Amino acid sequence: MSNDLFAVGQAALAAQAFSVLLGTQLTIFEPGHAELVLPIKPAFAQQAGFVHGGVISYLADNALSFVGGSVLGVDVLSAEFKLNFLKPGQGDRLIARATVIASSRRQAVCRCDIFAERDGQEHLCATALGTIMPR
Amino acid sequence: MSNDLFAVGQAALAAQAFSVLLGTQLTIFEPGHAELVLPIKPAFAQQAGFVHGGVISYLADNALSFVGGSVLGVDVLSAEFKLNFLKPGQGDRLIARATVIASSRRQAVCRCDIFAERDGQEHLCATALGTIMPR
Amino acid sequence: MSNDLFAVGQAALAAQAFSVLLGTQLTIFEPGHAELVLPIKPAFAQQAGFVHGGVISYLADNALSFVGGSVLGVDVLSAEFKLNFLKPGQGDRLIARATVIASSRRQAVCRCDIFAERDGQEHLCATALGTIMPR
Amino acid sequence: MSNDLFAVGQAALAAQAFSVLLGTQLTIFEPGHAELVLPIKPAFAQQAGFVHGGVISYLADNALSFVGGSVLGVDVLSAEFKLNFLKPGQGDRLIARATVIASSRRQAVCRCDIFAERDGQEHLCATALGTIMPR
Repeated sequence: MSNDLFAVGQAALAAQAFSVLLGTQLTIFEPGHAELVLPIKPAFAQQAGFVHGGVISYLADNALSFVGGSVLGVDVLSAEFKLNFLKPGQGDRLIARATVIASSRRQAVCRCDIFAERDGQEHLCATALGTIMPR
Repeated sequence: MSNDLFAVGQAALAAQAFSVLLGTQLTIFEPGHAELVLPIKPAFAQQAGFVHGGVISYLADNALSFVGGSVLGVDVLSAEFKLNFLKPGQGDRLIARATVIASSRRQAVCRCDIFAERDGQEHLCATALGTIMPR
Repeated sequence: MSNDLFAVGQAALAAQAFSVLLGTQLTIFEPGHAELVLPIKPAFAQQAGFVHGGVISYLADNALSFVGGSVLGVDVLSAEFKLNFLKPGQGDRLIARATVIASSRRQAVCRCDIFAERDGQEHLCATALGTIMPR
Repeated sequence: MSNDLFAVGQAALAAQAFSVLLGTQLTIFEPGHAELVLPIKPAFAQQAGFVHGGVISYLADNALSFVGGSVLGVDVLSAEFKLNFLKPGQGDRLIARATVIASSRRQAVCRCDIFAERDGQEHLCATALGTIMPR
Protein backbone atom coordinates (compact mmCIF):
# COMPACT_ATOMS: atom_id res chain seq x y z
CA MET A 1 0.00 0.00 0.00
CA SER A 2 1.47 3.32 -1.01
CA ASN A 3 1.73 5.36 2.15
CA ASP A 4 1.21 8.50 0.12
CA LEU A 5 -2.04 7.38 -1.46
CA PHE A 6 -3.26 6.04 1.86
CA ALA A 7 -2.47 9.34 3.58
CA VAL A 8 -4.37 11.22 0.87
CA GLY A 9 -7.34 8.93 1.39
CA GLN A 10 -7.28 9.33 5.14
CA ALA A 11 -7.17 13.11 4.77
CA ALA A 12 -10.13 13.00 2.40
CA LEU A 13 -12.14 10.89 4.84
CA ALA A 14 -11.20 13.11 7.77
CA ALA A 15 -12.48 16.10 5.76
CA GLN A 16 -15.95 14.51 5.46
CA ALA A 17 -17.92 15.80 8.43
CA PHE A 18 -20.56 13.12 7.88
CA SER A 19 -18.01 10.29 7.96
CA VAL A 20 -16.52 11.73 11.13
CA LEU A 21 -20.00 11.90 12.66
CA LEU A 22 -20.59 8.21 11.93
CA GLY A 23 -17.05 7.05 12.74
CA THR A 24 -15.91 5.59 9.42
CA GLN A 25 -12.32 4.35 9.12
CA LEU A 26 -10.29 3.83 5.96
CA THR A 27 -8.45 0.53 6.22
CA ILE A 28 -7.30 -0.16 2.64
CA PHE A 29 -6.72 2.38 -0.12
CA GLU A 30 -4.73 1.16 -3.10
CA PRO A 31 -5.19 1.66 -6.83
CA GLY A 32 -8.34 -0.30 -7.57
CA HIS A 33 -9.11 -1.37 -4.00
CA ALA A 34 -10.65 0.41 -1.03
CA GLU A 35 -11.96 -0.83 2.29
CA LEU A 36 -13.94 1.20 4.78
CA VAL A 37 -14.89 0.00 8.26
CA LEU A 38 -17.73 1.41 10.33
CA PRO A 39 -18.27 0.25 13.92
CA ILE A 40 -22.01 -0.24 14.46
CA LYS A 41 -23.62 2.05 17.05
CA PRO A 42 -27.12 1.96 18.54
CA ALA A 43 -27.77 5.30 16.80
CA PHE A 44 -27.59 3.56 13.40
CA ALA A 45 -30.73 1.50 13.95
CA GLN A 46 -34.00 1.46 12.07
CA GLN A 47 -37.27 0.51 13.77
CA ALA A 48 -36.55 -3.23 13.89
CA GLY A 49 -33.17 -2.73 15.55
CA PHE A 50 -31.03 -3.57 12.50
CA VAL A 51 -28.63 -1.11 10.91
CA HIS A 52 -30.63 1.39 8.84
CA GLY A 53 -30.38 0.74 5.10
CA GLY A 54 -29.33 4.37 4.77
CA VAL A 55 -26.16 3.67 6.77
CA ILE A 56 -25.35 0.76 4.48
CA SER A 57 -26.09 2.93 1.43
CA TYR A 58 -23.84 5.68 2.77
CA LEU A 59 -20.98 3.25 3.29
CA ALA A 60 -21.41 1.74 -0.18
CA ASP A 61 -21.56 5.17 -1.81
CA ASN A 62 -18.46 6.27 0.06
CA ALA A 63 -16.44 3.14 -0.68
CA LEU A 64 -17.39 3.38 -4.37
CA SER A 65 -16.22 7.00 -4.43
CA PHE A 66 -12.95 6.15 -2.71
CA VAL A 67 -12.12 3.26 -5.00
CA GLY A 68 -13.04 5.34 -8.05
CA GLY A 69 -10.79 8.09 -6.74
CA SER A 70 -7.96 5.59 -6.31
CA VAL A 71 -7.70 5.33 -10.10
CA LEU A 72 -9.20 8.61 -11.34
CA GLY A 73 -7.52 10.98 -8.90
CA VAL A 74 -8.77 12.43 -5.69
CA ASP A 75 -11.31 14.90 -6.99
CA VAL A 76 -14.21 12.67 -8.03
CA LEU A 77 -17.95 12.57 -7.69
CA SER A 78 -20.37 9.68 -7.47
CA ALA A 79 -22.56 9.73 -10.58
CA GLU A 80 -24.88 6.86 -9.73
CA PHE A 81 -25.08 3.54 -7.98
CA LYS A 82 -27.43 0.64 -7.45
CA LEU A 83 -27.56 -1.39 -4.28
CA ASN A 84 -29.20 -4.69 -3.38
CA PHE A 85 -29.84 -5.44 0.27
CA LEU A 86 -29.14 -9.11 1.01
CA LYS A 87 -29.34 -9.58 4.78
CA PRO A 88 -30.19 -7.37 7.76
CA GLY A 89 -27.13 -5.48 9.00
CA GLN A 90 -26.27 -6.37 12.58
CA GLY A 91 -23.24 -7.09 14.66
CA ASP A 92 -20.10 -5.23 15.63
CA ARG A 93 -19.08 -3.43 12.48
CA LEU A 94 -19.72 -2.96 8.78
CA ILE A 95 -16.94 -3.56 6.27
CA ALA A 96 -17.21 -2.22 2.73
CA ARG A 97 -14.85 -3.66 0.14
CA ALA A 98 -14.83 -1.91 -3.21
CA THR A 99 -13.00 -2.70 -6.44
CA VAL A 100 -12.74 -1.09 -9.86
CA ILE A 101 -14.27 -3.22 -12.61
CA ALA A 102 -13.25 -0.98 -15.49
CA SER A 103 -12.02 2.56 -15.81
CA SER A 104 -11.33 5.08 -18.52
CA ARG A 105 -10.35 8.73 -18.46
CA ARG A 106 -14.01 9.63 -18.04
CA GLN A 107 -15.34 7.17 -15.48
CA ALA A 108 -14.68 4.21 -13.24
CA VAL A 109 -17.31 1.51 -12.90
CA CYS A 110 -16.94 -0.01 -9.46
CA ARG A 111 -18.37 -2.73 -7.29
CA CYS A 112 -18.75 -2.82 -3.52
CA ASP A 113 -19.71 -5.60 -1.14
CA ILE A 114 -20.81 -4.66 2.36
CA PHE A 115 -20.33 -7.19 5.13
CA ALA A 116 -21.60 -7.13 8.69
CA GLU A 117 -19.14 -8.67 11.13
CA ARG A 118 -20.58 -10.37 14.19
CA ASP A 119 -18.45 -12.25 16.68
CA GLY A 120 -15.65 -12.34 14.15
CA GLN A 121 -17.84 -13.83 11.39
CA GLU A 122 -18.58 -11.83 8.25
CA HIS A 123 -21.97 -11.92 6.54
CA LEU A 124 -22.57 -10.32 3.16
CA CYS A 125 -25.42 -7.87 3.73
CA ALA A 126 -25.46 -5.76 0.55
CA THR A 127 -23.81 -5.41 -2.83
CA ALA A 128 -23.56 -2.31 -4.99
CA LEU A 129 -22.50 -1.32 -8.51
CA GLY A 130 -21.84 2.28 -9.46
CA THR A 131 -20.14 4.89 -11.58
CA ILE A 132 -17.57 7.42 -10.36
CA MET A 133 -16.52 10.39 -12.49
CA PRO A 134 -13.76 12.99 -12.25
CA ARG A 135 -15.12 16.28 -10.99
CA MET B 1 -54.33 12.61 4.57
CA SER B 2 -55.53 9.86 6.87
CA ASN B 3 -54.54 10.87 10.37
CA ASP B 4 -54.22 7.24 11.29
CA LEU B 5 -51.81 6.36 8.52
CA PHE B 6 -49.85 9.53 9.15
CA ALA B 7 -49.59 8.74 12.85
CA VAL B 8 -48.36 5.24 12.05
CA GLY B 9 -45.74 6.71 9.74
CA GLN B 10 -44.59 9.24 12.32
CA ALA B 11 -44.27 6.49 14.92
CA ALA B 12 -42.22 4.38 12.51
CA LEU B 13 -39.89 7.29 11.80
CA ALA B 14 -39.56 8.14 15.50
CA ALA B 15 -38.55 4.52 16.10
CA GLN B 16 -35.60 4.84 13.69
CA ALA B 17 -32.65 5.91 15.83
CA PHE B 18 -30.71 6.90 12.71
CA SER B 19 -33.49 9.16 11.43
CA VAL B 20 -33.72 10.77 14.86
CA LEU B 21 -29.95 11.31 14.83
CA LEU B 22 -30.15 13.10 11.48
CA GLY B 23 -33.38 14.97 12.21
CA THR B 24 -35.69 13.63 9.47
CA GLN B 25 -39.33 14.74 9.46
CA LEU B 26 -42.28 13.02 7.82
CA THR B 27 -44.41 15.66 6.09
CA ILE B 28 -46.68 13.62 3.78
CA PHE B 29 -47.71 9.98 4.20
CA GLU B 30 -50.67 8.87 2.12
CA PRO B 31 -51.30 5.71 0.12
CA GLY B 32 -48.85 6.01 -2.76
CA HIS B 33 -47.17 9.24 -1.63
CA ALA B 34 -44.57 10.06 0.99
CA GLU B 35 -42.50 13.14 1.67
CA LEU B 36 -39.57 13.36 4.05
CA VAL B 37 -37.79 16.60 4.96
CA LEU B 38 -34.28 16.80 6.37
CA PRO B 39 -32.84 20.13 7.50
CA ILE B 40 -29.23 20.34 6.32
CA LYS B 41 -26.61 20.53 9.07
CA PRO B 42 -22.86 21.18 8.81
CA ALA B 43 -22.31 17.61 10.06
CA PHE B 44 -23.76 16.27 6.79
CA ALA B 45 -20.93 17.58 4.63
CA GLN B 46 -18.43 15.73 2.48
CA GLN B 47 -14.95 17.17 1.80
CA ALA B 48 -16.14 19.83 -0.68
CA GLY B 49 -18.74 21.20 1.70
CA PHE B 50 -21.80 19.79 -0.07
CA VAL B 51 -24.19 17.34 1.53
CA HIS B 52 -22.61 13.89 1.52
CA GLY B 53 -24.07 11.58 -1.11
CA GLY B 54 -24.65 9.11 1.68
CA VAL B 55 -27.11 11.48 3.34
CA ILE B 56 -29.00 11.81 0.07
CA SER B 57 -28.92 8.03 -0.39
CA TYR B 58 -30.22 7.53 3.13
CA LEU B 59 -33.10 9.91 2.52
CA ALA B 60 -33.99 8.28 -0.80
CA ASP B 61 -33.86 4.79 0.70
CA ASN B 62 -36.05 5.89 3.59
CA ALA B 63 -38.63 7.69 1.45
CA LEU B 64 -38.82 4.67 -0.87
CA SER B 65 -39.43 2.41 2.13
CA PHE B 66 -42.10 4.69 3.53
CA VAL B 67 -43.98 5.03 0.27
CA GLY B 68 -43.76 1.28 -0.30
CA GLY B 69 -45.09 0.75 3.20
CA SER B 70 -47.97 3.11 2.48
CA VAL B 71 -49.42 0.52 0.09
CA LEU B 72 -47.91 -2.77 1.31
CA GLY B 73 -48.43 -2.30 5.03
CA VAL B 74 -46.06 -1.05 7.66
CA ASP B 75 -43.72 -3.99 7.91
CA VAL B 76 -41.61 -3.70 4.78
CA LEU B 77 -38.00 -3.90 3.75
CA SER B 78 -36.07 -2.20 1.02
CA ALA B 79 -34.95 -4.83 -1.47
CA GLU B 80 -32.91 -2.66 -3.79
CA PHE B 81 -32.65 0.80 -5.26
CA LYS B 82 -30.69 2.76 -7.80
CA LEU B 83 -29.89 6.43 -7.46
CA ASN B 84 -28.54 9.04 -9.85
CA PHE B 85 -26.92 12.14 -8.42
CA LEU B 86 -27.87 15.20 -10.48
CA LYS B 87 -26.59 18.27 -8.63
CA PRO B 88 -24.59 18.92 -5.46
CA GLY B 89 -26.80 19.01 -2.40
CA GLN B 90 -26.65 22.36 -0.66
CA GLY B 91 -28.99 24.82 0.99
CA ASP B 92 -31.37 24.74 3.91
CA ARG B 93 -33.04 21.36 3.66
CA LEU B 94 -33.50 18.23 1.60
CA ILE B 95 -36.97 17.18 0.50
CA ALA B 96 -37.60 13.62 -0.70
CA ARG B 97 -40.84 13.00 -2.61
CA ALA B 98 -41.63 9.38 -3.31
CA THR B 99 -44.45 7.75 -5.26
CA VAL B 100 -45.50 4.19 -6.05
CA ILE B 101 -45.20 3.37 -9.74
CA ALA B 102 -46.74 -0.09 -9.51
CA SER B 103 -47.49 -2.49 -6.70
CA SER B 104 -48.61 -6.05 -6.25
CA ARG B 105 -48.99 -8.28 -3.22
CA ARG B 106 -45.29 -9.09 -3.43
CA GLN B 107 -43.60 -5.77 -4.11
CA ALA B 108 -43.97 -2.05 -4.76
CA VAL B 109 -41.76 -0.40 -7.35
CA CYS B 110 -41.28 3.20 -6.29
CA ARG B 111 -39.64 6.39 -7.45
CA CYS B 112 -38.15 9.18 -5.36
CA ASP B 113 -36.93 12.64 -6.30
CA ILE B 114 -34.69 14.45 -3.83
CA PHE B 115 -34.65 18.24 -3.89
CA ALA B 116 -32.35 20.63 -2.10
CA GLU B 117 -34.13 23.82 -1.04
CA ARG B 118 -32.08 26.99 -0.91
CA ASP B 119 -33.59 30.38 -0.15
CA GLY B 120 -37.02 28.95 -0.88
CA GLN B 121 -36.01 27.58 -4.30
CA GLU B 122 -36.00 23.84 -4.93
CA HIS B 123 -33.33 22.16 -7.04
CA LEU B 124 -33.57 18.51 -8.07
CA CYS B 125 -30.38 16.93 -6.79
CA ALA B 126 -31.02 13.19 -7.16
CA THR B 127 -33.54 10.67 -8.41
CA ALA B 128 -34.01 7.09 -7.34
CA LEU B 129 -35.93 3.98 -8.40
CA GLY B 130 -36.33 0.99 -6.09
CA THR B 131 -38.21 -2.06 -4.92
CA ILE B 132 -39.91 -2.45 -1.53
CA MET B 133 -41.14 -5.84 -0.31
CA PRO B 134 -43.29 -6.98 2.60
CA ARG B 135 -41.17 -8.40 5.37
CA MET C 1 -41.73 18.68 -33.56
CA SER C 2 -38.74 19.92 -35.50
CA ASN C 3 -38.78 18.10 -38.81
CA ASP C 4 -35.01 18.31 -38.94
CA LEU C 5 -34.44 16.67 -35.58
CA PHE C 6 -37.06 14.04 -36.34
CA ALA C 7 -35.42 13.25 -39.68
CA VAL C 8 -32.05 12.88 -37.96
CA GLY C 9 -33.60 10.52 -35.46
CA GLN C 10 -35.27 8.44 -38.12
CA ALA C 11 -32.01 8.16 -40.01
CA ALA C 12 -30.22 7.04 -36.84
CA LEU C 13 -32.84 4.38 -36.19
CA ALA C 14 -32.77 3.20 -39.81
CA ALA C 15 -29.00 2.81 -39.47
CA GLN C 16 -29.42 0.36 -36.57
CA ALA C 17 -29.54 -3.09 -38.14
CA PHE C 18 -30.91 -4.55 -34.91
CA SER C 19 -33.80 -2.07 -34.76
CA VAL C 20 -34.60 -2.80 -38.39
CA LEU C 21 -34.57 -6.53 -37.61
CA LEU C 22 -37.09 -6.05 -34.79
CA GLY C 23 -39.20 -3.41 -36.58
CA THR C 24 -38.87 -0.44 -34.23
CA GLN C 25 -40.47 2.86 -35.25
CA LEU C 26 -39.62 6.36 -34.03
CA THR C 27 -42.86 8.23 -33.36
CA ILE C 28 -41.75 11.24 -31.29
CA PHE C 29 -38.30 12.84 -31.20
CA GLU C 30 -38.14 16.30 -29.69
CA PRO C 31 -35.64 17.90 -27.31
CA GLY C 32 -36.22 16.02 -24.08
CA HIS C 33 -38.84 13.57 -25.39
CA ALA C 34 -38.64 10.41 -27.46
CA GLU C 35 -41.16 7.71 -28.23
CA LEU C 36 -40.42 4.38 -29.88
CA VAL C 37 -43.06 1.89 -30.96
CA LEU C 38 -42.41 -1.80 -31.56
CA PRO C 39 -45.16 -4.04 -32.96
CA ILE C 40 -45.10 -7.33 -31.04
CA LYS C 41 -44.27 -10.41 -33.12
CA PRO C 42 -44.40 -14.10 -32.14
CA ALA C 43 -40.62 -14.19 -32.53
CA PHE C 44 -40.28 -11.91 -29.49
CA ALA C 45 -41.61 -14.48 -27.03
CA GLN C 46 -39.96 -16.13 -24.05
CA GLN C 47 -40.98 -19.61 -22.90
CA ALA C 48 -44.29 -18.53 -21.30
CA GLY C 49 -45.44 -16.73 -24.44
CA PHE C 50 -44.94 -13.18 -23.15
CA VAL C 51 -42.57 -10.70 -24.75
CA HIS C 52 -39.01 -11.58 -23.72
CA GLY C 53 -37.61 -9.22 -21.11
CA GLY C 54 -34.67 -8.72 -23.43
CA VAL C 55 -36.95 -7.11 -26.02
CA ILE C 56 -38.28 -4.74 -23.38
CA SER C 57 -34.73 -4.01 -22.21
CA TYR C 58 -33.64 -3.33 -25.77
CA LEU C 59 -36.49 -0.88 -26.29
CA ALA C 60 -35.80 0.91 -23.02
CA ASP C 61 -32.08 1.16 -23.77
CA ASN C 62 -32.81 2.51 -27.21
CA ALA C 63 -35.40 5.05 -26.09
CA LEU C 64 -33.05 6.26 -23.35
CA SER C 65 -30.28 6.71 -25.92
CA PHE C 66 -32.55 8.58 -28.30
CA VAL C 67 -33.88 10.94 -25.68
CA GLY C 68 -30.36 11.55 -24.38
CA GLY C 69 -29.26 12.28 -27.93
CA SER C 70 -32.11 14.75 -28.32
CA VAL C 71 -30.38 17.08 -25.87
CA LEU C 72 -26.70 16.02 -26.07
CA GLY C 73 -26.39 15.71 -29.84
CA VAL C 74 -26.66 12.70 -32.06
CA ASP C 75 -23.42 10.95 -31.21
CA VAL C 76 -24.10 9.47 -27.80
CA LEU C 77 -23.61 6.23 -25.95
CA SER C 78 -25.59 4.56 -23.24
CA ALA C 79 -23.46 4.46 -20.09
CA GLU C 80 -25.79 2.52 -17.84
CA PHE C 81 -29.41 1.89 -17.03
CA LYS C 82 -31.60 0.10 -14.53
CA LEU C 83 -34.93 -1.44 -15.38
CA ASN C 84 -37.79 -2.77 -13.28
CA PHE C 85 -40.22 -5.20 -14.86
CA LEU C 86 -43.77 -4.49 -13.69
CA LYS C 87 -46.13 -6.64 -15.77
CA PRO C 88 -45.73 -9.30 -18.45
CA GLY C 89 -45.45 -7.76 -21.91
CA GLN C 90 -48.27 -8.88 -24.18
CA GLY C 91 -50.60 -7.40 -26.75
CA ASP C 92 -50.20 -5.65 -30.06
CA ARG C 93 -47.26 -3.35 -29.57
CA LEU C 94 -44.77 -1.92 -27.09
CA ILE C 95 -44.51 1.83 -26.64
CA ALA C 96 -41.46 3.35 -24.94
CA ARG C 97 -41.74 6.94 -23.74
CA ALA C 98 -38.53 8.53 -22.56
CA THR C 99 -37.82 11.93 -21.02
CA VAL C 100 -34.74 13.77 -19.83
CA ILE C 101 -34.73 14.34 -16.07
CA ALA C 102 -31.56 16.43 -15.99
CA SER C 103 -28.73 17.07 -18.39
CA SER C 104 -25.36 18.76 -18.39
CA ARG C 105 -22.58 18.98 -20.93
CA ARG C 106 -21.32 15.61 -19.76
CA GLN C 107 -24.42 13.47 -19.36
CA ALA C 108 -28.19 13.23 -19.53
CA VAL C 109 -30.06 11.29 -16.87
CA CYS C 110 -33.21 9.94 -18.45
CA ARG C 111 -36.31 7.97 -17.59
CA CYS C 112 -38.30 5.61 -19.77
CA ASP C 113 -41.68 3.95 -19.27
CA ILE C 114 -42.53 0.97 -21.46
CA PHE C 115 -46.18 0.23 -22.11
CA ALA C 116 -47.77 -2.78 -23.76
CA GLU C 117 -50.84 -1.88 -25.78
CA ARG C 118 -53.56 -4.49 -26.04
CA ASP C 119 -56.86 -3.82 -27.76
CA GLY C 120 -56.16 -0.11 -27.57
CA GLN C 121 -55.47 -0.16 -23.81
CA GLU C 122 -52.01 0.66 -22.49
CA HIS C 123 -50.49 -1.17 -19.54
CA LEU C 124 -47.24 -0.06 -17.92
CA CYS C 125 -44.96 -3.09 -18.12
CA ALA C 126 -41.54 -1.70 -17.21
CA THR C 127 -39.77 1.46 -16.10
CA ALA C 128 -36.13 2.39 -16.55
CA LEU C 129 -33.66 5.03 -15.38
CA GLY C 130 -30.32 5.55 -17.11
CA THR C 131 -27.39 7.73 -18.07
CA ILE C 132 -26.49 8.79 -21.61
CA MET C 133 -23.13 10.39 -22.42
CA PRO C 134 -21.69 12.13 -25.47
CA ARG C 135 -19.38 9.82 -27.37
CA MET D 1 -22.64 -30.40 -14.51
CA SER D 2 -25.87 -32.26 -13.86
CA ASN D 3 -27.11 -33.52 -17.20
CA ASP D 4 -30.66 -33.23 -15.97
CA LEU D 5 -30.42 -29.58 -14.99
CA PHE D 6 -28.54 -28.78 -18.18
CA ALA D 7 -31.23 -30.50 -20.28
CA VAL D 8 -33.92 -28.51 -18.48
CA GLY D 9 -32.03 -25.31 -19.21
CA GLN D 10 -31.56 -26.16 -22.85
CA ALA D 11 -35.26 -26.92 -23.20
CA ALA D 12 -36.14 -23.59 -21.59
CA LEU D 13 -33.84 -21.71 -23.96
CA ALA D 14 -35.18 -23.59 -26.98
CA ALA D 15 -38.69 -22.55 -25.92
CA GLN D 16 -37.75 -18.86 -26.11
CA ALA D 17 -38.60 -17.76 -29.63
CA PHE D 18 -36.53 -14.61 -29.19
CA SER D 19 -33.42 -16.53 -28.14
CA VAL D 20 -33.87 -18.86 -31.11
CA LEU D 21 -34.19 -15.82 -33.40
CA LEU D 22 -30.89 -14.40 -32.12
CA GLY D 23 -29.08 -17.75 -31.88
CA THR D 24 -28.25 -17.94 -28.17
CA GLN D 25 -26.59 -21.09 -26.84
CA LEU D 26 -26.51 -22.36 -23.27
CA THR D 27 -23.00 -23.54 -22.47
CA ILE D 28 -22.99 -23.83 -18.66
CA PHE D 29 -25.96 -24.36 -16.37
CA GLU D 30 -25.17 -25.50 -12.85
CA PRO D 31 -26.57 -24.45 -9.49
CA GLY D 32 -25.32 -20.89 -9.11
CA HIS D 33 -23.59 -20.63 -12.50
CA ALA D 34 -24.86 -20.04 -16.02
CA GLU D 35 -23.10 -19.18 -19.25
CA LEU D 36 -24.78 -18.11 -22.46
CA VAL D 37 -22.97 -17.63 -25.77
CA LEU D 38 -24.29 -15.57 -28.65
CA PRO D 39 -22.44 -15.50 -31.99
CA ILE D 40 -22.38 -11.91 -33.26
CA LYS D 41 -24.22 -11.30 -36.53
CA PRO D 42 -24.32 -8.17 -38.71
CA ALA D 43 -28.02 -7.86 -37.84
CA PHE D 44 -27.10 -7.06 -34.23
CA ALA D 45 -25.43 -3.74 -35.07
CA GLN D 46 -26.31 -0.22 -33.99
CA GLN D 47 -25.49 2.78 -36.18
CA ALA D 48 -21.74 2.77 -35.43
CA GLY D 49 -21.37 -0.89 -36.34
CA PHE D 50 -20.94 -2.20 -32.78
CA VAL D 51 -23.32 -4.69 -31.20
CA HIS D 52 -26.48 -2.85 -30.14
CA GLY D 53 -26.68 -2.26 -26.40
CA GLY D 54 -30.08 -3.90 -26.55
CA VAL D 55 -28.50 -7.20 -27.60
CA ILE D 56 -26.10 -7.00 -24.67
CA SER D 57 -28.99 -6.11 -22.34
CA TYR D 58 -31.01 -9.04 -23.65
CA LEU D 59 -28.13 -11.44 -23.02
CA ALA D 60 -27.53 -10.10 -19.51
CA ASP D 61 -31.22 -10.29 -18.65
CA ASN D 62 -31.40 -13.84 -19.94
CA ALA D 63 -28.25 -15.04 -18.17
CA LEU D 64 -29.46 -13.47 -14.92
CA SER D 65 -32.79 -15.29 -15.29
CA PHE D 66 -31.10 -18.60 -16.02
CA VAL D 67 -28.73 -18.40 -13.11
CA GLY D 68 -31.56 -17.35 -10.81
CA GLY D 69 -33.58 -20.29 -12.06
CA SER D 70 -30.65 -22.62 -11.34
CA VAL D 71 -31.22 -22.10 -7.62
CA LEU D 72 -34.88 -21.04 -7.40
CA GLY D 73 -36.36 -23.58 -9.80
CA VAL D 74 -37.20 -23.25 -13.43
CA ASP D 75 -40.24 -21.02 -13.22
CA VAL D 76 -38.78 -17.62 -12.47
CA LEU D 77 -39.14 -14.06 -13.62
CA SER D 78 -36.68 -11.23 -13.82
CA ALA D 79 -37.74 -8.53 -11.36
CA GLU D 80 -35.13 -5.90 -12.15
CA PHE D 81 -31.57 -5.42 -13.24
CA LYS D 82 -29.00 -2.70 -13.73
CA LEU D 83 -26.33 -2.79 -16.40
CA ASN D 84 -23.19 -0.76 -17.00
CA PHE D 85 -21.73 -0.68 -20.48
CA LEU D 86 -17.94 -0.78 -20.34
CA LYS D 87 -16.65 -1.22 -23.90
CA PRO D 88 -18.22 -1.41 -27.35
CA GLY D 89 -19.32 -4.94 -28.20
CA GLN D 90 -17.52 -6.27 -31.25
CA GLY D 91 -15.91 -9.47 -32.42
CA ASP D 92 -17.03 -13.01 -32.98
CA ARG D 93 -19.34 -13.74 -30.09
CA LEU D 94 -20.71 -12.51 -26.80
CA ILE D 95 -20.30 -14.60 -23.66
CA ALA D 96 -22.44 -13.93 -20.59
CA ARG D 97 -21.29 -15.44 -17.31
CA ALA D 98 -23.73 -15.17 -14.44
CA THR D 99 -23.45 -16.16 -10.79
CA VAL D 100 -25.72 -16.06 -7.77
CA ILE D 101 -24.51 -13.65 -5.08
CA ALA D 102 -27.18 -14.53 -2.53
CA SER D 103 -30.47 -16.32 -2.61
CA SER D 104 -33.42 -16.96 -0.35
CA ARG D 105 -36.77 -18.59 -0.87
CA ARG D 106 -38.09 -15.32 -2.29
CA GLN D 107 -35.33 -14.06 -4.55
CA ALA D 108 -31.88 -14.56 -5.98
CA VAL D 109 -29.58 -11.57 -6.39
CA CYS D 110 -27.29 -12.30 -9.31
CA ARG D 111 -24.38 -10.80 -11.19
CA CYS D 112 -23.51 -11.15 -14.85
CA ASP D 113 -20.41 -10.14 -16.81
CA ILE D 114 -20.69 -9.93 -20.58
CA PHE D 115 -17.56 -10.44 -22.64
CA ALA D 116 -17.00 -9.91 -26.34
CA GLU D 117 -14.60 -12.43 -27.82
CA ARG D 118 -12.48 -11.29 -30.74
CA ASP D 119 -9.80 -13.48 -32.29
CA GLY D 120 -9.87 -15.67 -29.21
CA GLN D 121 -9.39 -12.76 -26.79
CA GLU D 122 -12.13 -11.83 -24.34
CA HIS D 123 -12.94 -8.22 -23.46
CA LEU D 124 -15.33 -7.31 -20.67
CA CYS D 125 -17.97 -5.13 -22.32
CA ALA D 126 -20.73 -4.89 -19.71
CA THR D 127 -21.60 -5.90 -16.17
CA ALA D 128 -25.03 -6.33 -14.64
CA LEU D 129 -26.64 -6.86 -11.23
CA GLY D 130 -30.22 -8.01 -10.86
CA THR D 131 -32.96 -9.75 -8.94
CA ILE D 132 -34.74 -12.94 -10.00
CA MET D 133 -37.93 -14.12 -8.29
CA PRO D 134 -39.97 -17.32 -8.38
CA ARG D 135 -43.05 -16.89 -10.53
